[in-house]
Amino acid sequence: MSANSFGSRLVMHTFGESHGRAIGVLIDGVPAGLPIDFSALQKFLDRRKPGTSAWVSQRAEPDQLEIVSGIFEGKTLGTPICGFVYNQNARSGDYENIKNQPRHGHAEQAWKNKFGHIDHRGGGRSSGRETLSRVIAGAICEQALNKIAPQMQVVGWVSQIGEWPCDMDLARTSSRAEIDQFPARFPIQDSQFIAEKLQNAKTNGESYGGIAEIEIRSPLSSLGQPVFHKLKSDLATAAMSLGATLGVDFGEGIPSLCVAGTEFHATTKVTQYGGIQGGISTGDVIRFRVYFKPTSSILDVAKKGRHDPCIVPRAIPVLEAMASFVLMDHWLWSQTDKFRI
Amino acid sequence: MSANSFGSRLVMHTFGESHGRAIGVLIDGVPAGLPIDFSALQKFLDRRKPGTSAWVSQRAEPDQLEIVSGIFEGKTLGTPICGFVYNQNARSGDYENIKNQPRHGHAEQAWKNKFGHIDHRGGGRSSGRETLSRVIAGAICEQALNKIAPQMQVVGWVSQIGEWPCDMDLARTSSRAEIDQFPARFPIQDSQFIAEKLQNAKTNGESYGGIAEIEIRSPLSSLGQPVFHKLKSDLATAAMSLGATLGVDFGEGIPSLCVAGTEFHATTKVTQYGGIQGGISTGDVIRFRVYFKPTSSILDVAKKGRHDPCIVPRAIPVLEAMASFVLMDHWLWSQTDKFRI
Amino acid sequence: MSANSFGSRLVMHTFGESHGRAIGVLIDGVPAGLPIDFSALQKFLDRRKPGTSAWVSQRAEPDQLEIVSGIFEGKTLGTPICGFVYNQNARSGDYENIKNQPRHGHAEQAWKNKFGHIDHRGGGRSSGRETLSRVIAGAICEQALNKIAPQMQVVGWVSQIGEWPCDMDLARTSSRAEIDQFPARFPIQDSQFIAEKLQNAKTNGESYGGIAEIEIRSPLSSLGQPVFHKLKSDLATAAMSLGATLGVDFGEGIPSLCVAGTEFHATTKVTQYGGIQGGISTGDVIRFRVYFKPTSSILDVAKKGRHDPCIVPRAIPVLEAMASFVLMDHWLWSQTDKFRI
Amino acid sequence: MSANSFGSRLVMHTFGESHGRAIGVLIDGVPAGLPIDFSALQKFLDRRKPGTSAWVSQRAEPDQLEIVSGIFEGKTLGTPICGFVYNQNARSGDYENIKNQPRHGHAEQAWKNKFGHIDHRGGGRSSGRETLSRVIAGAICEQALNKIAPQMQVVGWVSQIGEWPCDMDLARTSSRAEIDQFPARFPIQDSQFIAEKLQNAKTNGESYGGIAEIEIRSPLSSLGQPVFHKLKSDLATAAMSLGATLGVDFGEGIPSLCVAGTEFHATTKVTQYGGIQGGISTGDVIRFRVYFKPTSSILDVAKKGRHDPCIVPRAIPVLEAMASFVLMDHWLWSQTDKFRI
Repeated sequence: MSANSFGSRLVMHTFGESHGRAIGVLIDGVPAGLPIDFSALQKFLDRRKPGTSAWVSQRAEPDQLEIVSGIFEGKTLGTPICGFVYNQNARSGDYENIKNQPRHGHAEQAWKNKFGHIDHRGGGRSSGRETLSRVIAGAICEQALNKIAPQMQVVGWVSQIGEWPCDMDLARTSSRAEIDQFPARFPIQDSQFIAEKLQNAKTNGESYGGIAEIEIRSPLSSLGQPVFHKLKSDLATAAMSLGATLGVDFGEGIPSLCVAGTEFHATTKVTQYGGIQGGISTGDVIRFRVYFKPTSSILDVAKKGRHDPCIVPRAIPVLEAMASFVLMDHWLWSQTDKFRI
Repeated sequence: MSANSFGSRLVMHTFGESHGRAIGVLIDGVPAGLPIDFSALQKFLDRRKPGTSAWVSQRAEPDQLEIVSGIFEGKTLGTPICGFVYNQNARSGDYENIKNQPRHGHAEQAWKNKFGHIDHRGGGRSSGRETLSRVIAGAICEQALNKIAPQMQVVGWVSQIGEWPCDMDLARTSSRAEIDQFPARFPIQDSQFIAEKLQNAKTNGESYGGIAEIEIRSPLSSLGQPVFHKLKSDLATAAMSLGATLGVDFGEGIPSLCVAGTEFHATTKVTQYGGIQGGISTGDVIRFRVYFKPTSSILDVAKKGRHDPCIVPRAIPVLEAMASFVLMDHWLWSQTDKFRI
Repeated sequence: MSANSFGSRLVMHTFGESHGRAIGVLIDGVPAGLPIDFSALQKFLDRRKPGTSAWVSQRAEPDQLEIVSGIFEGKTLGTPICGFVYNQNARSGDYENIKNQPRHGHAEQAWKNKFGHIDHRGGGRSSGRETLSRVIAGAICEQALNKIAPQMQVVGWVSQIGEWPCDMDLARTSSRAEIDQFPARFPIQDSQFIAEKLQNAKTNGESYGGIAEIEIRSPLSSLGQPVFHKLKSDLATAAMSLGATLGVDFGEGIPSLCVAGTEFHATTKVTQYGGIQGGISTGDVIRFRVYFKPTSSILDVAKKGRHDPCIVPRAIPVLEAMASFVLMDHWLWSQTDKFRI
Repeated sequence: MSANSFGSRLVMHTFGESHGRAIGVLIDGVPAGLPIDFSALQKFLDRRKPGTSAWVSQRAEPDQLEIVSGIFEGKTLGTPICGFVYNQNARSGDYENIKNQPRHGHAEQAWKNKFGHIDHRGGGRSSGRETLSRVIAGAICEQALNKIAPQMQVVGWVSQIGEWPCDMDLARTSSRAEIDQFPARFPIQDSQFIAEKLQNAKTNGESYGGIAEIEIRSPLSSLGQPVFHKLKSDLATAAMSLGATLGVDFGEGIPSLCVAGTEFHATTKVTQYGGIQGGISTGDVIRFRVYFKPTSSILDVAKKGRHDPCIVPRAIPVLEAMASFVLMDHWLWSQTDKFRI
């Protein structure tokens, strides 16, 4: 398996450096005949774009998706789909002064030790911009899943920023479209509260870690393999392959575990298990959380005024995309679970 | 990639059902010429064996390792190493009454829906006994790593059982041999405390979740790939592919994230990042925690008196083995990082 | 991909040295619920066994198949199937004198240069005995294919030994059972002719190369992928991964190509293309030939009187098994060709 | 493994349809720090270009290579290299009349049956134009191999067109540059002979099959794995994954096999074995031949006047590129053959 590939039956191969010529993905294994709605793809891509509100990075990239293979007359061919965006607003000059001085808290020093040669501009391949590739792949999967299981919804939100938790009841009853309306995808009644916090952080060079929560509502059952490709394991891999993540948990989460087993198992809350048993989806809601460290760009001379004070809001579409990719991969895999002859 | 394989340059393929004929592993990619100490392998295997203390499962398996390929005259051949143990003390009769009645909290129902046909005895392939395969593979890797980087130590312990935390200072200064001496691998001055708790739980049909903590001390640097096979991602995959795990985190852990970035990054504690930056090991101690739910065997008529009241102590050698496997896989991978001509 | 694995959706991982403890295979990806006829498996295995006629190697191995996982109550579980035979009649002492003197025409010298450490006994992992693993895997696939496409038959024969060609009309109208009745699986009216040639060769320390021809009769259509896993490419890989093979061709073979295109394409013989177009089976008979060099064991002091004067007859079940494996792999793959929602 | 990927340690993922937007490749696993000579890449690519002489296809594509990732300041980064060319001179209108009428001898019918949906223009993904992707990948590998083993040369030529053989002595003593000077890469003293034959064929709508011969001169030893990734097996896979190939053989070829073993093995010609024993290169010249059917484009209304009367000359750089890719893949693999601590 190569270092830039993800998936088992369906595979995405991502490529591109932050300030190189292009960033994109090659997706292999999508069955033939799936109609593709290009404008929906572009719209999904725009959800992670920088420059969309006052407190996120102001790198203004059009991020116009080009798909150069695998789709003909609006439908997939069963051949590899290559999609990418050209990088345009890459202020590489900003990075000249760090060329020989790796940034604290960034990947540069470790990368340099490992590979000897490094594209220092904007994090190179370690940039969060790499996640754009994943969104393209996940957005295509979502179009497939919408046909396979229209009732299934992958919905994520920011459930904590710094020390501030969202309104969980509001979050769990909101659709993706509704969550996208909240500033910072942070569901809370007083929506200006967090906008101000983030604006202040941006002004003051501050940043916050936070928590993303993802729900797969009305999921298909029987997805996931029993040993190494458990559904929980593949979702965790997806989450932990993002740059700023430091943890992941499923079900009701870590605090719920520190009780006696008679109490834990007495519950009728199926959510205790996160909707997955023995690695396989049961059909109950799948719920997991991903933990992000505060962005280190505050320390970063090069990014003066262009940093995200909290990266989690923009990570939501990436996590949703990755979850959809994992679901589609396992759906394909599940087609040969049983000998049906 | 198949559902029962793990690794990139080094691959383990595991096989076997809990009450089938044998449980084992095929390991492909170990370089030729590595001397193998068989008695050390067996000793590592014995560390996860049931029946080793009053409060763990009393299934008394000799778990005698047979290696049938890949090693000749005490050294690896560079060919696949197949190692397994025959199952012996499989009281399959115990499971007759659950054949048509899947156990609550176990994988059986999800498995049955998915595959149609199931080995209901002792969890079949979903049994924790599958982890024996991983210990064989990891123990071989550890012998390789001992030669490659003798200073590197993979040490795990139980850092919490139910609501009781271990003595963290004691834990972080104890060697693996010292930790193995603590009841339940739970480092604490008053070592009888936890032994009594577990004995009571066993008597009363109670169980506890808990936390395992793993440290990779004096690790090699430059291990890990920058995108999908980040070192943190592969370690998380390894942890989340175990049956009872519900979460994993790195560095100083989740509570450390809920602070402002200026505070988080101001620290000089390299452990904030868990010893990994951009997916690549920096050489600083790597630290991660794995969260386990209370074992559901308390609910399990079939296992009357044979259950583990807390599974975490026996998971420690499994996690150590998996970590060693991941390290060896990435060491092999790192041999071709740079073009050295 | 590891060096001892073959297949894409269905994977076989083979292991074992000729005079090691065991030789076997781990098969991952067989769907759950396939009934397995163990005695048919053993019978298939016996077809490649040494010691079955006067002129083949006299190493008398019972080759009793043990399956230790993946099958329960006579049906596959969807989990990895591990099957192997213990090596018994390994006259390793025969090989002592070659320990430090690699045999001309064998793999030992190249192996030693590459790996440093080598199991010199009977060819170690390079022994033809490794093919036993493939037969186990292929025989299981054949049981599946018999249910999926009962009309499809994989039939091979020896079409040339040294300079002597078989009777091609007889070959192409004979069933597998009929071909197994011919001495040396060489279809010819005067069946004693070749038996005498081989007996003489054995007596005189002579050997012959030869040609195996494989037909897939009434094959499923739509098997094979369009670029790297063309059906012809995967079948060629299978053939060329055997030890003594030096070539492979499809359709009417090499001489048929040296004509003008107007003549070649004017024909209505679909067999020109070998039943495969654009890498995909058309439903017409698939025909390919595999070319073997004369066995080098004639040069081999260690094998005095135990060599096969022509290896091709025993290669037939191996090639049939590999073909069945490739077909089953591609059948599984074809289940997700089209988006069917 | 996905259907459009090739390689084990080094992997190429190819994409693109003949008349789609672009054709290209993603190469993952090239170590960091390799200097890349872009003009040499373009020159290699131009060697397979249509329109280069009177008798090849007149599709005049500039085939300008764009590399959009993986290379920075003229050196590889160790990240995926994505290279492609935009399709420009795609006279898709030519194919309108075949949209609903698959061409005899082409892949369209099999493809349509399999996938349902097809890009009928110019063969779509089944076009020979797909090989352009492989040339990009192989040309990069060749630059690496030139540094690793400067004495090693991969040289191919057309050794037979229709019934006419080349001058083998001339071929085996010519460099690649010299062979490129012969019309149709067909080494023969009277070089106009074959040019006339091909010009006549083009005029008369005739075509020819033929044979490509590839030599790896002064090869590295110890490349190749002993079981499934034998060097001969991977080279055969590479050859048989091309569209028009029907066979491959190694060493002195098929006729050499039909002799008695005492004669075959008595020879001191190491070339008998094709430079590979037990799947591993010995350091002797590696020689193999690839057999091509006459192109079926003669039957093809759409290609009136644009067909190649013999495809083999343009296949030479493709086969050289694939061989170089296989060699580089195995060189990377060989870096971890032995445990060197």
